[in-house]
Amino acid sequence: MTPEEAQEQLEEYRLMIDEVDRRIVALLNERTAVVENIGRVKREAQLPVYEPKREDQVFANITSANQGPLTTQAVRGIFERIIDASRSIQRLRMMQKPPEDPKC
Amino acid sequence: MTPEEAQEQLEEYRLMIDEVDRRIVALLNERTAVVENIGRVKREAQLPVYEPKREDQVFANITSANQGPLTTQAVRGIFERIIDASRSIQRLRMMQKPPEDPKC
Repeated sequence: MTPEEAQEQLEEYRLMIDEVDRRIVALLNERTAVVENIGRVKREAQLPVYEPKREDQVFANITSANQGPLTTQAVRGIFERIIDASRSIQRLRMMQKPPEDPKC
Repeated sequence: MTPEEAQEQLEEYRLMIDEVDRRIVALLNERTAVVENIGRVKREAQLPVYEPKREDQVFANITSANQGPLTTQAVRGIFERIIDASRSIQRLRMMQKPPEDPKC
């Protein structure tokens, strides 16, 4: 493989990665929109943000969905950060006054 | 909203999250398969694994794709971990002997 062929091949793969990344960003935001709804329900029902049992379910779901080549450990590491971002957003929403209540 | 209604609503949202998460895991693995191909090309062409300019492109792509509600900072944080996982896999592939070369 000449250096030029290698560069051409890399360029093609990188366009594929950029496309996959945009789809991942869209799904992360779709997930976050649902998390915001969960935050709203928890606020209205005065339920706690942090539920360790639910986090176990999330990890069990992604572990069983993982068919590789990523290792379970790598997928869990990525989702730890996704869950951190979710928890921050829920906390933020819990602090906000409910917009539907005119007394607030 | 009664506590029962809240729980029912949460359950529905959680099924949605589990579904989105499985799609994210599939895309992460699709991304990783392309990264493995990139590692193979780099090994054959003896190019370095770490290319800071390419990482800037990845971040520019995800930043411009992000329409919220996730913040740019949160998306970047998640992708830092995705890129870490990618780099580990490329390093692993670079250390492996090329299977197509009978002399090795």
